[in-house]
Parts: sequence; C-alpha cells; structure tokens
Amino acid sequence: MRTSMSARRTRCLLTVLVCGGALLATAAPTPAQEPNLISIAIHGGAGTLPRSEMTAEKEALYRAGLEAALDAGYAVLERGGSSLDAVTAAVQLLEENPLFNAGKGAVLNHQGIAELDASIMEGKDRRAGAVAGLRHVRSPIELARKVMENSPHVMLVGDGAEEFALAQGLALVPNEYFLTDARREQLQRKLSRTTASSQQRREANDLSAFGTVGAVARDRNGNLAAATSTGGMTGKRWGRIGDSPIIGAGTYADNASCAVSATGHGEYFIRSVVAYDICAQMAYGKMSLAQSADVVINHKLRQMGGDGGIIAVDGDGNLVLEFNSEGMFRGARSSAGRREVAIYR
Amino acid sequence: MRTSMSARRTRCLLTVLVCGGALLATAAPTPAQEPNLISIAIHGGAGTLPRSEMTAEKEALYRAGLEAALDAGYAVLERGGSSLDAVTAAVQLLEENPLFNAGKGAVLNHQGIAELDASIMEGKDRRAGAVAGLRHVRSPIELARKVMENSPHVMLVGDGAEEFALAQGLALVPNEYFLTDARREQLQRKLSRTTASSQQRREANDLSAFGTVGAVARDRNGNLAAATSTGGMTGKRWGRIGDSPIIGAGTYADNASCAVSATGHGEYFIRSVVAYDICAQMAYGKMSLAQSADVVINHKLRQMGGDGGIIAVDGDGNLVLEFNSEGMFRGARSSAGRREVAIYR
Repeated sequence: MRTSMSARRTRCLLTVLVCGGALLATAAPTPAQEPNLISIAIHGGAGTLPRSEMTAEKEALYRAGLEAALDAGYAVLERGGSSLDAVTAAVQLLEENPLFNAGKGAVLNHQGIAELDASIMEGKDRRAGAVAGLRHVRSPIELARKVMENSPHVMLVGDGAEEFALAQGLALVPNEYFLTDARREQLQRKLSRTTASSQQRREANDLSAFGTVGAVARDRNGNLAAATSTGGMTGKRWGRIGDSPIIGAGTYADNASCAVSATGHGEYFIRSVVAYDICAQMAYGKMSLAQSADVVINHKLRQMGGDGGIIAVDGDGNLVLEFNSEGMFRGARSSAGRREVAIYR
Repeated sequence: MRTSMSARRTRCLLTVLVCGGALLATAAPTPAQEPNLISIAIHGGAGTLPRSEMTAEKEALYRAGLEAALDAGYAVLERGGSSLDAVTAAVQLLEENPLFNAGKGAVLNHQGIAELDASIMEGKDRRAGAVAGLRHVRSPIELARKVMENSPHVMLVGDGAEEFALAQGLALVPNEYFLTDARREQLQRKLSRTTASSQQRREANDLSAFGTVGAVARDRNGNLAAATSTGGMTGKRWGRIGDSPIIGAGTYADNASCAVSATGHGEYFIRSVVAYDICAQMAYGKMSLAQSADVVINHKLRQMGGDGGIIAVDGDGNLVLEFNSEGMFRGARSSAGRREVAIYR
C-alpha cells in the first residue's frame, strides 16, 4: 500500500507537471529509446510445478524448451521479420513441446480428450484471430492466424473452426496426437480428487491444473504482436472456454499502448479483461507498462482472488513479465542485451 | 477535436484540483444524485430495416415489442428487484419475440440452423456468464445466468453448454422452434447474393444481416447489470462467434463505472473491446458515460469501419443510447420520469 500511495502521489505530481507543460507548451520530452530495438518475451504458463516437486532434471528440460522458443522468435526479429511471425514461431515450438499445456501435451478434458484454444493479435491495425474447442488442429495458433488473415471473422469455434482449417489446407491430426501419459495421469488424479472431496471450486483454483503458452514481441518497425495457445483446464467440462482465446482477456495488441499474453485462472482473467486493461491503464491512466501490469496482476486480480500472470511489451520495446503465483515459466530477450529464462521468483 | 482538447484541459485542471485536494485533504464533492434512482435501457439491435423499407404497420409491431420488454424490466426494478433480474426479464421477452435476432426469430447460419449466443454480467462482484453456439436452449440468457450462478466457469460453448443446460434442469427445444419464414427468406437472399457477387467482405458489412438484443439497468441498491443475446450473423459459417457472448466486447458491468450491452458488426466490437473500453475511459480517463460512449462509438469504432451501437448505464443511473448506424431499436425508462422507445435517429 505504501508503494501504491507513493505511486499515486508521484503520478499526481507528474500529471500536474505534464498538464502544466501542455498548457504552457513546455512539455518535458520522454526519454529517447533505440528506435530499432527488437524484443520478445514468452511464457509457458503460470501453472508451474510446486518448487518442492521440481527436480534438477525436469527444470533443465523446461529451461531448454523455453530457450528454444525464445531464440526461435528472436531469430525471426533479428533477420528483420515481423513481430507477428516472431510470436507465431515461438508459440508453435511451445505447442510442439509436450511439457507445456498447448498443442501436444495439452491437458485433457473430463472425457480424456484434448480441446485446444488460441488467439493472436497484431498491434498495427488491431486485427485479431481466435479459435476454441479444437480437437484435430495440430497448431491452434496457426489456425488463429489464418482466421485473422483469411476470414472476415475474429473467432471460430468447434467443428466449424476445423472445417475452416480444412478449407485453408491445414492438415488435421487424430486427437491421440496431443495425448501424453503425464496428462492422462494428471486427469486421473484430478477426477479421483473431485469424487473424493467434491470441493470443485477449491480445486478449480489449483493452478497445477492450468497452463498456457504465449509470446509478445516488438519488431524493428515498431509493430507489436501477441499470441496465446492452451489446452485449458484439466478435467474441464461442458465446453468450458478460458481466457486464452478471448481477445481482451488472454491476448491483446495495440501499437499505441502494448501487447499482452496472459496465463492463469482464466475465469478471473475474463471478468477483469486483463490483457486490454493493462493497455487501457497505459492509454488513459498515463501509467507505464510496468506500473499497469503491477496494478492489474498484484492488486486488482489478487483482490478478486485470481492467480496467474502476463508477459507484455510496450511501443518502446520494454518487456514486463509479472505474476502473482509461485512461478511462471518465462523468457525474455532484446537487442538491448537482455536474455533470460526463469521459472520461479 | 476541439471538444477533446477542451476536455483534456478540463481534465488536467480537475486532476490538479483533485490531486491537490488529496494532498491538502479538501477534495471537491461530486454532485448529488437521487440515490434510489432506478433506470433501464434496452436494445433490439442496430441492424434495423432501412427507413425506406419500414412500414407504419411494421414499426408499430417493433415498438410494441420494445415497450413490452422495457416495461417488464422496469416493473422488476420498481418492485425492488435486482438489476440482474430486470435485464434477464427484458432480454427474455425480446428472445421470445420473433421480430428480433435472438431466441425465436434468430437469423440462420449457412446451413439454415439457428445458433445462439448470450452473456450476462453483474456490476457488484463482476461475476459473469456466457454461452455460445447453442442450438436447443430456448432462452440463451437464462443459460448464461446459470453459468454465472451455478458453475465455476464464465464461458461454455456448443454441445457441452447444452449438456450443462440439461444438468441445470433447463428444457431443450428442437432447433425448429427458433426458425421463422422471414429468417429463411433472409438467408436465401444472402446466399444468392453471395454466390452472385462473391463480395463476401462487403456484404459482411451489411447491418441488416446482424441484430442483437440487450438490456442494462441500475437498481435501487445502486447495482448495475448488463445482458446481451443474439442469433449472430445471417449465413455465418465455421462456428463464427461475434461479440455478444464475449465479456468485455458485447457485455460488461462494473458498479464503479458502468454497464454496457453492444450491438453491431461483432468483429470490430471484439477487436475494440467496446463494452469494457467505455468503462475504462470513465475509470482511468475521467470521462462521463456520455463522453466515453461518444468517443468509442462515433470516433474510435467509426475510424476502424465498425457499425453499431451500445446502451449503457452508469452508477448514478444515467442512461446512454449511442449508435453510428442509421438506427437502433431501443428504449429507456427511469424513475426520473424518462420513458421512450425509438428506432431511427
């Protein structure tokens, strides 16, 4: 609270200065940034294993997966590619990695079936694509991008979305492609716990049942993009959709403010419109990206009871990776020399 | 632009005063309002008939339908009921009225089937429920409310959502229940036009293919609620979902700012996060509800090319009905003496 009070006081004083500046036409310049800075951040979900269950061997595998995706996305930016291509490349590697809850290795629904959701958005024209309830599309993020680029729509779901995938020439795979023994066991544990305790709501708060992958990037031309892909929630029923395919909740991108990909307890992220809220506080509340992400994740979401985190990039290429959970699989890299991969705080 | 400059100037001065006030503990009071004011607004979609095709007889039928829904919702508020019950009652009457694109009388998808979406949100705790791709649930808004109140989830789609409906004791109806001759003819016209011209994108902008119903209300306790229900877009394919079931885009409610229900070309409303954006500009940009709705509908959406409108209510019970299309079926009523129903400008 002390930080927030002092932040408010600073903001008020700054507002006075900036407003005064505008009235007197002597506004202070913003600090100069490298105009061609390229940067990317990725996440593999806020639903990490508790630190007590993480072995050195497992950790090395997770880190290698994060590094591969981070470097693949960064390589696209480095050779002058678009932020859209960079986030697509990074997310596709995470989808193909069975460790993360997206594509292959997605968690299973109540019937033991993988059901996949994804969304993508670019910040220049704020075009967006989203898909949900897929059972046979190998790369959900690829289909989300096809929806954005080759259809007049933003969101397609279920069988209809897969029909569109076929019309776009995407090969479908059997649902078995996505299944792994680890996810089968996770579902069994979840189902037996539910039967035993029937404390469904409490268990719905167990972050180990969640997971998502995502990426945000700024390219050399200053264009932002964000992408998110997920298998949703272990043991989900009734065609449940979380925040990942919801533009505004799980994914948002606007060159004028920021690009965000979220991960966590999706229901809270939808109700709080998390991704867009971070952009809106920047646009209307004159916050920095770091301030805005802190307020949304550590104050607003926490007050509501929502666990999770976000990765985000602003128009200057500043990267923010913020979470209120024990950990978040994550990585960040920029031409300003940053390169890091981490799991816990 | 002049308004916006002057608004910014005023905002700056106000910020100086408020910030100064906070520092000196002499903040200026906000103007007093009737604390028990009750108010409700409804819409029957921005996809009205062109004025040239509207006959006096048709107009009388539309007006009667709007009046019945408006008065049903208002009656709930008047006897001390909640805003949630009021918007549910109003939307259910519009769903049952074959003239409007929701429930019975919904537009048909590419296969001639009615596929229904809805969402609801209450402003006190920001709980929300949404459903999409329904084919057999008589009142989609009723199911959205069950999702909000009786499940740990926010959004359910397709067969899974209907399974949840059965588990909740809702009776399902055959898809034929929703079909009307007028919608069958509309689909035929649309399909033949598409084949003839193949200008799909252009036709996707034809608002007569859209339509939605919705309601927003403030009850005696100052609680806000919003509800939206739709059949989507005539001739829609591939499991397309518009903004109506998307929390943040088609529906939002927060007692601290406003409650909004939107109608129009859904893809633009999703990309612009219309409902939440109106609330966010109020919360962070210190705009009034009327200013915020004007900026979003008449400036931001219009620049993007998005047609449609919104109804909204703020914490003081002020009602705003704003649209950038030729018309919007709409009605408003409050205990301050307002009572109106209108279609065109």
